Amino acid sequence: MAVLLSTLATEIVIPVAAFIGIVFSLVQWFIVSRVKVTPERHAPPAGPNSNKNGFNDYLIEEEEGLHDQNVVAKCAEIQNAISEGATSFLFTEYQYVGVFMVVFAILIFLFLGSVEGFSTKSQPCTYDAQRTCKPALATAVFSTVAFILGGVTSILSGFLGMKIATYANARTTLEARKGVGKAFIVAFRSGAVMGFLLAANGLLVLYITINVFKVYYGDDWEGLFESITGYGLGGSAMALFGRVGGGIYTKAADVGADLVGKVERNIPEDDPRNPAVIADNVGDNVGDIAGMGSDLFGSYAESSCAALVVASISSFGINHEFTSMLYPLLISSMGILICLITTLFATDFFEIKAVKEIEPALKKQLIISTVLMTVGIAIISWIALPSSFTIYNFGVQKVVKNWQLFLCVAVGLWAGLIIGFVTEYYTSNAYSPVQDVADSCRTGAATNVIFGLALGYKSVIIPIFAIAVSIFVSFSFAAMYGIAVAALGMLSTIATGLAIDAYGPISDNAGGIAEMAGMSHRIRERTDALDAAGNTTAAIGKGFAIGSAALVSLALFGAFVSRAAISTVDVLTPKVFIGLIVGAMLPYWFSAMTMKSVGSAALKMVEEVRRQFNTIPGLMEGTAKPDYATCVKISTDASIKEMIPPGALVILTPLIVGTLFGVETLSGVLAGSLVSGVQVAISASNTGGAWDNAKKYIEAGASEHARTLGPKGSDPHKAAVIGDTIGDPLKDTSGPSLNILIKLMAVESLVFAPFFATHGGLLFKIF
Amino acid sequence: MAVLLSTLATEIVIPVAAFIGIVFSLVQWFIVSRVKVTPERHAPPAGPNSNKNGFNDYLIEEEEGLHDQNVVAKCAEIQNAISEGATSFLFTEYQYVGVFMVVFAILIFLFLGSVEGFSTKSQPCTYDAQRTCKPALATAVFSTVAFILGGVTSILSGFLGMKIATYANARTTLEARKGVGKAFIVAFRSGAVMGFLLAANGLLVLYITINVFKVYYGDDWEGLFESITGYGLGGSAMALFGRVGGGIYTKAADVGADLVGKVERNIPEDDPRNPAVIADNVGDNVGDIAGMGSDLFGSYAESSCAALVVASISSFGINHEFTSMLYPLLISSMGILICLITTLFATDFFEIKAVKEIEPALKKQLIISTVLMTVGIAIISWIALPSSFTIYNFGVQKVVKNWQLFLCVAVGLWAGLIIGFVTEYYTSNAYSPVQDVADSCRTGAATNVIFGLALGYKSVIIPIFAIAVSIFVSFSFAAMYGIAVAALGMLSTIATGLAIDAYGPISDNAGGIAEMAGMSHRIRERTDALDAAGNTTAAIGKGFAIGSAALVSLALFGAFVSRAAISTVDVLTPKVFIGLIVGAMLPYWFSAMTMKSVGSAALKMVEEVRRQFNTIPGLMEGTAKPDYATCVKISTDASIKEMIPPGALVILTPLIVGTLFGVETLSGVLAGSLVSGVQVAISASNTGGAWDNAKKYIEAGASEHARTLGPKGSDPHKAAVIGDTIGDPLKDTSGPSLNILIKLMAVESLVFAPFFATHGGLLFKIF
Repeated sequence: MAVLLSTLATEIVIPVAAFIGIVFSLVQWFIVSRVKVTPERHAPPAGPNSNKNGFNDYLIEEEEGLHDQNVVAKCAEIQNAISEGATSFLFTEYQYVGVFMVVFAILIFLFLGSVEGFSTKSQPCTYDAQRTCKPALATAVFSTVAFILGGVTSILSGFLGMKIATYANARTTLEARKGVGKAFIVAFRSGAVMGFLLAANGLLVLYITINVFKVYYGDDWEGLFESITGYGLGGSAMALFGRVGGGIYTKAADVGADLVGKVERNIPEDDPRNPAVIADNVGDNVGDIAGMGSDLFGSYAESSCAALVVASISSFGINHEFTSMLYPLLISSMGILICLITTLFATDFFEIKAVKEIEPALKKQLIISTVLMTVGIAIISWIALPSSFTIYNFGVQKVVKNWQLFLCVAVGLWAGLIIGFVTEYYTSNAYSPVQDVADSCRTGAATNVIFGLALGYKSVIIPIFAIAVSIFVSFSFAAMYGIAVAALGMLSTIATGLAIDAYGPISDNAGGIAEMAGMSHRIRERTDALDAAGNTTAAIGKGFAIGSAALVSLALFGAFVSRAAISTVDVLTPKVFIGLIVGAMLPYWFSAMTMKSVGSAALKMVEEVRRQFNTIPGLMEGTAKPDYATCVKISTDASIKEMIPPGALVILTPLIVGTLFGVETLSGVLAGSLVSGVQVAISASNTGGAWDNAKKYIEAGASEHARTLGPKGSDPHKAAVIGDTIGDPLKDTSGPSLNILIKLMAVESLVFAPFFATHGGLLFKIF
Repeated sequence: MAVLLSTLATEIVIPVAAFIGIVFSLVQWFIVSRVKVTPERHAPPAGPNSNKNGFNDYLIEEEEGLHDQNVVAKCAEIQNAISEGATSFLFTEYQYVGVFMVVFAILIFLFLGSVEGFSTKSQPCTYDAQRTCKPALATAVFSTVAFILGGVTSILSGFLGMKIATYANARTTLEARKGVGKAFIVAFRSGAVMGFLLAANGLLVLYITINVFKVYYGDDWEGLFESITGYGLGGSAMALFGRVGGGIYTKAADVGADLVGKVERNIPEDDPRNPAVIADNVGDNVGDIAGMGSDLFGSYAESSCAALVVASISSFGINHEFTSMLYPLLISSMGILICLITTLFATDFFEIKAVKEIEPALKKQLIISTVLMTVGIAIISWIALPSSFTIYNFGVQKVVKNWQLFLCVAVGLWAGLIIGFVTEYYTSNAYSPVQDVADSCRTGAATNVIFGLALGYKSVIIPIFAIAVSIFVSFSFAAMYGIAVAALGMLSTIATGLAIDAYGPISDNAGGIAEMAGMSHRIRERTDALDAAGNTTAAIGKGFAIGSAALVSLALFGAFVSRAAISTVDVLTPKVFIGLIVGAMLPYWFSAMTMKSVGSAALKMVEEVRRQFNTIPGLMEGTAKPDYATCVKISTDASIKEMIPPGALVILTPLIVGTLFGVETLSGVLAGSLVSGVQVAISASNTGGAWDNAKKYIEAGASEHARTLGPKGSDPHKAAVIGDTIGDPLKDTSGPSLNILIKLMAVESLVFAPFFATHGGLLFKIF
């Protein structure tokens, strides 16, 4: 049955959407760049469009210290230091990761090539024995290439994000002099640059790769899309190191800086006298920005690959319906356009006039993008899908209607929104859960921790139900393809999601720069308000990342099972059950490693910071400058060294289990780590977010209740600071890294499935 | 094939072993009772056997304050207060639980009776259609009776344990005047009373029940042993409330007492001026003793039931081989005898002469009992099993050799030992993990918590591998029957396990009484040494409880699947997968409830304690007595109220899921909660144990390193106290309660399986 959108139109629409996304992000970048950090000239005079695009003059705050060129110079200097630190760390990280990529690429080639003994002869296709498919060696070569492309795109996503973030932080600080609304728009636009660049790049590279590979593969779509899975693996493998390395970096610096600065020396956060303060700000950019970017790019790449590989052995692939085949990419294309419109609501259609409007504005972004995208999905499903088609479902073809597939995508999209809102409820200090945690600080740090942990555990309930419902609906309608497109649905508004997510660390940095540049108390208050909203959006972003990771891994898991030719994964067989229970243990093992890493690295940082305070005369008095570089180096060295063991755990587990115990046990491991990891990840990141905002709640003292707990330095506040510090590695290192654990193990299993199916399970073969 | 042990011999051996166990425990009780707590007379003069049985006079410590009759009177008074508090709480608890038991008994009757529409006609058997089996109504009636019997036995186990513990605590204190060795033996003997009473009672009641039910059922062993599963359900349902209620009680009091006493008022632990001190000591007895007793009795009853129900549809049951059928009970009988011999090693064959010998002595108990029991299992397997037989395995009969079954039991037994040792390694302050945690207190409470959490996560790894290996071995050899007997193997040395476990809270109480009675510093030091070893053994006991719970629930799960006539539990079906992920979430939901309960109850306690300190003049100076009773009442009320929601979650989940979603989804829920709950439980209890002992490590100052962190009141010590307080609800409330969550849901599903199989899955039937 023909679809409304022709193959030619599809070939045009996708790159055009990607192109629009890239242009839009460049425009945003240009607008941000108009804020000058060069002290020679004044801030640009209001142009003809001065009452739009954030350059509006009826913001409620008065302008403050606009003409102090000294401050501008200082901001520029600090920005440079942060940017250099981040760039140098990422380059160091990429060197190590580069070595890993090369080794792993060789491994992929060898493992996959060995499936048919490196034969160059074409073989009958697995799912359609009458056709001839390309040899396994071709899959080995192209998977390796796709792997490298995925890795490079992931690096690019993270790196560009870091660049724009370190470009925007000082500009946000400087705009904060003009008011909270202007600062908000700079930070948000910069987030949008990252969001759109990432979404568009990911789409474009994938699209080009498919088209180039198609030149060789021709009609063998099965082989074509199997090779494409390497793209997801590359993206996720990079993301692993980005998240773990970046996470350890940022939290070692943050915890180390806080332990000496806030607790021992009683100096404020981001005080320039603290030697670890630059490392802390660098950390935000390499962890929360570059790491997050790589992570979400990985999710995006993997869900697309999972959908494509299942589709290739379904009627789309068998009948060579190109438009329907590229349905996942069309959804993403539509997503870019919808997010573009959504962004205008924040930057152009409405304006932020007061602090209390920030969080609602960000929330509105989520709602608007979800509502519009629902329509977008309906349109794509209508024009790109035949009214009825079949989907491969573990050996049988299942008939699916186009409206059913629409529901699959939509349920994922809306589940994402629900997860976002629940996360907000549990981590924003506007609601009772965080206020209860703050209140428990009255009786000390112990009750704060007990209540915080309980909050994190509790916050798991609704997201899990939301995920379960999406799984049930999409699974029932369209089997594993349904799950994959549900994940894509959740990620379809990724540009907006990343924009509001990246906004957080940018504001955090802006606050740090304001403090370090010695700007006035009021400017710091404005950036703090931006940052508090940023904490919540960061938690929401993590919620999305985890929710989508759960769906993505399940989809990958399903694709793996299909590719490994397993028909059931029966919990009641010992092989599967031991996999299940060991898999459920892996998130704990992984978290133990990452948390201990942060702890040890933080201790090293503490020692260095103490050493500097004790040996550099005049440091506490502000007459001498601390040695920032040594702290940056400690964070860099620690995170590079410490990211290897958890990385090895994640990467080696599927290889070892698959090779020694075979595909059934590996299935168990994947299912176990998925269902257990999601819980640990959600609870860890919400607990951490809640502690952070409970502390901010006490500090801000915005309500009667909050004032009874404060002010800064009171006993309850000290208890809150302890909670905040404990939450740091939970919410920024181990929690979010777990997404990657579950996704990466699944995509790796998928890529290596033919090898495991052929040569795996050695241990059982021997005995 | 005939077995060596005749049916008659079996009928004699089991009750005789139970009888020996009961007599042995009464003898121990009698020996303990010779320590007098009545001040009129002196401690009994050394009798003819004075240099044995702990009444030895070459212990290294000098006798201290033996003739101060005032102290004896005070001890007696405190003991009375604790005993009364515990008794009154348990009676209150049992009233509520009694109501629940009646309601639930009616529910069981109605649900199971409805399976065949309350028909009184006999039906063809499920597994052997040529035979006639009793109607479902009979199963309903007898299951209900067995349920009540299980519940009552569980109550009895908990209550008797509490009685002996509150009988022994003051006696341990008084013996501590004579030396650490004598005090140890009193505490250990008292633990043994509980251990043997529980093991023997559990066995005897089960044995009698089977024989009485057999009168009605005759040859219908299928129906007979299906009804017997009610015994496990009753035991576990009671244990749930015992663990949760007791856990909340003890930790509300403990945390509340510490927060005001240690942190705010700077008075020592167990100081008689602290109004919550009696409640704290009562808590040890109702939580760690009564709760633990009910919990392990539940595990024991359930693993026996799981083994019996699988055996009844295997060749033993079909061919009516009574001796082989009762193999699980014979293992337990042998266990009682082996534990009896093992106990003599601690009480009579060797003597404790110094503090450092306590922990090794307790460890030796584990090793000796495991080694001897291995031989015992071999003997039972040789005389009670035919050399070859068949076991029902999801629709097919699997041939098993007797040596294979021996290996199944042995692998469970040894896995228990490994779990015990790993737990010791991670929670004893003799090893580096706890010392590292203690060291991290240097930089404050935050790093202490981060390191402690990481330690707990890490401590999961080896136990999970041990459990996985036992599952794989026993599953491969003898399917679900193998798992059930592996669980029984782990629990076969339950009498010894409980003895060393109950020893901990008794010593803890003894220390409390010494402090409250104003006894000398040296006596307190002796009881502290006993208590430190007790912390580790408590953690080991929890390790056993969790490990066995994992095996037991899997066995019950397998029995449920058989009884519900499901042939596969395929993760790749949406019904199962959503069950799996929601099931994995339940331990978090449950932990959130229990932790929050402890937190809230502790806050109430804090307020009351503060109120008393502020309003009772002379309290701080020790001239006025605090109002202990109000604190006892707060703990009682809070725990009764707060145990209902988590209890409801556990009990209603299988009913709701089974009825609305059906047996496949329920299978997923059981598997998910099992694989996720084990991890949460192990990590929570080890984290808590490690924090407690890190604090003790600093306080004791026994090494160069420890002294750099101390003394009491130093900053690192304060940080350690915070960790200890956080660990309290983790290790004594939510962690151990999770065992019951996973077991109880499994046994409940098993009992209700016929109902779910017939009437379940309403939601899917409607849509």
